[in-house]
This record gives sequence, C-alpha cells and structure tokens, in this order.
Amino acid sequence: MKRYGSVIAVKPDKLEDYIYHHAHPWEKVNAMIKECNIQNYSIYYKDGLLFSYFEYVGEDYGADMEKMAADETTQRWWDLVKPFQTPLDTRKEGEWWAAMEEVYHLD
Amino acid sequence: MKRYGSVIAVKPDKLEDYIYHHAHPWEKVNAMIKECNIQNYSIYYKDGLLFSYFEYVGEDYGADMEKMAADETTQRWWDLVKPFQTPLDTRKEGEWWAAMEEVYHLD
Repeated sequence: MKRYGSVIAVKPDKLEDYIYHHAHPWEKVNAMIKECNIQNYSIYYKDGLLFSYFEYVGEDYGADMEKMAADETTQRWWDLVKPFQTPLDTRKEGEWWAAMEEVYHLD
Repeated sequence: MKRYGSVIAVKPDKLEDYIYHHAHPWEKVNAMIKECNIQNYSIYYKDGLLFSYFEYVGEDYGADMEKMAADETTQRWWDLVKPFQTPLDTRKEGEWWAAMEEVYHLD
C-alpha cells in the first residue's frame, strides 16, 4: 500500500460549490475511484487550501490513473470541479494537485 | 473511528531539522501516540506547510490528548519540535496545529 498526500488551492468564491459537490459526490465517480484501487480517501479544507490523503492498494498506479482519466463520467466530474480549483505554481509538470512529501508516518 | 486533518507552517530555516527529527522519531513518543489511540498517522510537507492526517480509535479524545500532554518524554519532544513550527493565525483557541474541515471521504 502506498499513501499519497497532495494539495491544491480553491477559489474563494467557489468554495461553497466545491464543498457542496463533494458532499454529494457522483456514485459512478466514487465507484471508479475504488475500481482504480484508491481507498480511505479524504479531502480537508482550511484557509483557501485543500489537502487530500488516500491510500493506493493496486499494482500499477500509472495504469490505474490512466484508466480513471479515460472514464467519461469522471471526465464530466472533473469538468465540474476543476474550475473551482487553482493549482499551485510549484506543482511538478503533469500534476494538478501538487504532491506533498511524506516526512513522518506511524502505523 | 474519527479522522483528523490539520495544518501548521514550518519555519523555512528549520525545515531540514523538522524533517530530520521526524525521520528519527523517539520510540517512546511513538509508543505514547499509539497508547493514546492514534493510528495511521502521516505528516506531509509542501511549500512551507505541514499537513497531518491520523485516525483516532479510542473513546475519549480529550482524555487521551491530556494523557499525551502529561507524558514527560512527549513534552521534551514537543520542546524540540514546536520551535520549528509557526501556527496559523487562523487557528482556533487552544489549537497548535489548526484543525481542517473534512469536505469529502470515501472508504
């Protein structure tokens, strides 16, 4: 299992929309996330930033992410929610959410 | 089980120290964290911010936090690492790490 932490900003005037839609996630989007071997997935908000934490339990993260990106319902969900976000300037090439560095872990 | 996400800043000139000590945590501090019913505890870093995620599996979070705060080894650890951090001005009264709001969760 591999843990992923990442961060992105949310537009102040879109925070309410972001929270509303994530309180009412689409069933098919959730199902695809699980099908792509992601579990125990949480998103937190504070002071304009969103932090996400999830656990990947599959064998090929890249392949699973490609599968998710190819899913039409997921694409429509992203079309809905990505305009609410502002990715960090410091993210790496190809990132939307910026990966964070794990500096501590205790099981 | 209850999940907690929280955030704090790290002083730029102390980041290296913070990372070093968290890569070499004191055994007794880790043991006390577990004894206080916290598990699956991760800390992530990006752009001057630390994000922590953990799961509380006990019955009385307040009592467990008091127990942890009363532990002498934990106090010495905090004396070491707290000066590396800058708490957010927007934290609530009594907080060091600022609690974040959970806006999404998928098991």
